[in-house]
Amino acid sequence: MPEKNLHELTATEIVSRISAGKTTAEAVARACLDYIAEREPAVQAWQFLDPKLVIQQAQALDSGTSIGPLQGVPVGMKDIIDTADMPTEYGTPIHAGHRPHMDAACVALTRRAGGIIMGKTVTTEFANRHPGKTMHPMDPKRTPGGSSSGSAAAVGCSMIPLAIGTQTTGSTIRPAAYNGCVGYRPTWGDLRLAGVMEAAGSLDTLGLIARSVEDIALYRNILIGVPTEALPATPCQPPRVGVCRTQFWDITDDATKHAIESCAAAMAKGGAKVSDLTLPASFDPIEEIHQRISSFEFARNRAWEINHHYEKISKTLRENRLKHGLAYSFEEYREARAQAEALRLQLDDIFRDYDVILTPSAPGEPPVGLNATGSAAFSSIWTACHNPSITLPLFSGPNKLPIGVQLVTRRDTDRYLFEAARWTNALYGR
Amino acid sequence: MPEKNLHELTATEIVSRISAGKTTAEAVARACLDYIAEREPAVQAWQFLDPKLVIQQAQALDSGTSIGPLQGVPVGMKDIIDTADMPTEYGTPIHAGHRPHMDAACVALTRRAGGIIMGKTVTTEFANRHPGKTMHPMDPKRTPGGSSSGSAAAVGCSMIPLAIGTQTTGSTIRPAAYNGCVGYRPTWGDLRLAGVMEAAGSLDTLGLIARSVEDIALYRNILIGVPTEALPATPCQPPRVGVCRTQFWDITDDATKHAIESCAAAMAKGGAKVSDLTLPASFDPIEEIHQRISSFEFARNRAWEINHHYEKISKTLRENRLKHGLAYSFEEYREARAQAEALRLQLDDIFRDYDVILTPSAPGEPPVGLNATGSAAFSSIWTACHNPSITLPLFSGPNKLPIGVQLVTRRDTDRYLFEAARWTNALYGR
Repeated sequence: MPEKNLHELTATEIVSRISAGKTTAEAVARACLDYIAEREPAVQAWQFLDPKLVIQQAQALDSGTSIGPLQGVPVGMKDIIDTADMPTEYGTPIHAGHRPHMDAACVALTRRAGGIIMGKTVTTEFANRHPGKTMHPMDPKRTPGGSSSGSAAAVGCSMIPLAIGTQTTGSTIRPAAYNGCVGYRPTWGDLRLAGVMEAAGSLDTLGLIARSVEDIALYRNILIGVPTEALPATPCQPPRVGVCRTQFWDITDDATKHAIESCAAAMAKGGAKVSDLTLPASFDPIEEIHQRISSFEFARNRAWEINHHYEKISKTLRENRLKHGLAYSFEEYREARAQAEALRLQLDDIFRDYDVILTPSAPGEPPVGLNATGSAAFSSIWTACHNPSITLPLFSGPNKLPIGVQLVTRRDTDRYLFEAARWTNALYGR
Repeated sequence: MPEKNLHELTATEIVSRISAGKTTAEAVARACLDYIAEREPAVQAWQFLDPKLVIQQAQALDSGTSIGPLQGVPVGMKDIIDTADMPTEYGTPIHAGHRPHMDAACVALTRRAGGIIMGKTVTTEFANRHPGKTMHPMDPKRTPGGSSSGSAAAVGCSMIPLAIGTQTTGSTIRPAAYNGCVGYRPTWGDLRLAGVMEAAGSLDTLGLIARSVEDIALYRNILIGVPTEALPATPCQPPRVGVCRTQFWDITDDATKHAIESCAAAMAKGGAKVSDLTLPASFDPIEEIHQRISSFEFARNRAWEINHHYEKISKTLRENRLKHGLAYSFEEYREARAQAEALRLQLDDIFRDYDVILTPSAPGEPPVGLNATGSAAFSSIWTACHNPSITLPLFSGPNKLPIGVQLVTRRDTDRYLFEAARWTNALYGR
């Protein structure tokens, strides 16, 4: 295996090399900046990137006396996350040039750990559906997915090892899968969102995007604000796996169906107890439930923009999320919240019989066309139910584009999810 | 009964008079400004107030063509709530002079309804314990309570009819009770917090402070972002009341004990089925549970201030909330979250036998001393359990200072809570 270039290293590898004095934060940052300069014209992952600011951060780290757990790791921040030294524009001309006066909690925790804030990655408008400028790094006619478009594209094509996105529907898992990344959506409520634009608070989480499960585990601890702790050296026991094709199986393409069946077979061969899991009928209306909650809250959260800049809001947003959100009654909204809570408890019960659910990350390869970002259906269930999930880039489709498989575990078992992901990766020699 | 002065009117009365052409937004605003000028030197409720900005808003409303449901009502906004035209300083010198670029959702919804943003009311440091400059309007040696100190003092002494506070422990109910106001903490999750400083998201809610239950009901609908709807004209049936003295009864003074017993007797006389309610032992550690959740989250949310301005954080905050928050492990925090969730379900069950819980709003009259803001113990249970509650200013103590009684109802029954509050008020001819 040829030696990796610095910009291709994972976060864990960067920290290890810098700690051992084998490279510097500045060298890593320059390698990433050079590669970004090469690829950015065709990818457009960055809403804001100032190389000078990056080098300043790297030099400050190199001349410092302490080594943080994320020492010298360049991180991309979705542009709905406040940064004190960079603009934060939420993917809309309404907030063009806006510069927050302080960092979001996740940014401050990243800096405290020695991370470098590389820049702001492109988001769809208000982290909703109207796309930004980013193109898929492997095919510019295709969407990188959304809403964390730039974060996933930048990590996927090795501009940076690590990025933060957010997920209110499928905004981390889907773009991570499209770009061949490891994408992680945490148990709802674990990672603080102070300083992050609220889309729909009952559903919003941060989302982490990386190229290894170890990096996700490392960064999660940093963002929780606790000491880092490596995953156990011994692999976990083969899990009890429920293969969940969901009510969206018929919008899934053949390559994705094949990926799921093939992964299930590999898991069984690896010793897992694999069985089919059909969710009860109560999960059928999950998209409507999710839509009511997210639209109702989103429309209130945009009250200022609606008051002052309605004409600058995209037609897509006005005629979908906002229109629906303003049409629902409070009773319809609260009923949906109660239904979602009931489904969470039901899913907790289902997890008595399964350690891991295996399900698609998206219906297929990233679709052609830059005016949409693909279907989030395969995330809506787990997002609404507050479960942690991870997408692993184990397959590819007929166009040689990435296809991910999604693992989901019970709420509050995020560390176990990582162990199960490593176990699954190992089946494929990763 | 003598005619009220304009600054003494409730929100409902203001809207009604302006709609009928009997007064103008400007006349009301000027009356409030005049009264503020008179009282402010001894109360210090305002962190920011610009009379010119107030009059501009009032004149714009008077010259407009529509009449909103909050037309011309002056509202005070706790200074942890973003306003685009006024500073927002979070009660700390760290953010002195900070001016947000947009309004919080609750501010934008208030403006849309025709409300006037009167100014920013004093908060304790980061809505925690270290007091601001506000004094109790009836006795400058006493605390107005906190953390929504200015909001409660300003409404209590009739500078304004309505204010927004927030509650993470007892930051609305307690100051509202101390100042003789009606204070309302909603079911957690109902009112959007976009643009409001996060203290601890798992517990934070807005809190509404007014001088009538009708005003609270009116403003709640506006902040939910739905059409307003008056409370039913017919009073509700006499409720089944559980008198809950709680584990904090021994820190309660005689006047407060008397208020609760006397209110329980009046309710029984009014036809209510009144019985004692002793919470199960599982509720005993509620303060520790609440402390773990709020401190853990608070300490992460302040990551930027800790990184850059640690020396400007008060000793009170550093040595209590922050120290605790940084000492808890993630497992201790998550265990506390699980315990709180279990208690919520247990309390839902308890509410099968009761419509309303009657309990103190605070342990007594506002205490002497401006270096603390009184005990939040009587709110910690209901805050941690996400229930709606309201404090009614029905009693006074040996120093002629207000003593409130708190009514609590099942989660998601906020409108019923208002009806039960009106029924209770009626027992006292209010």
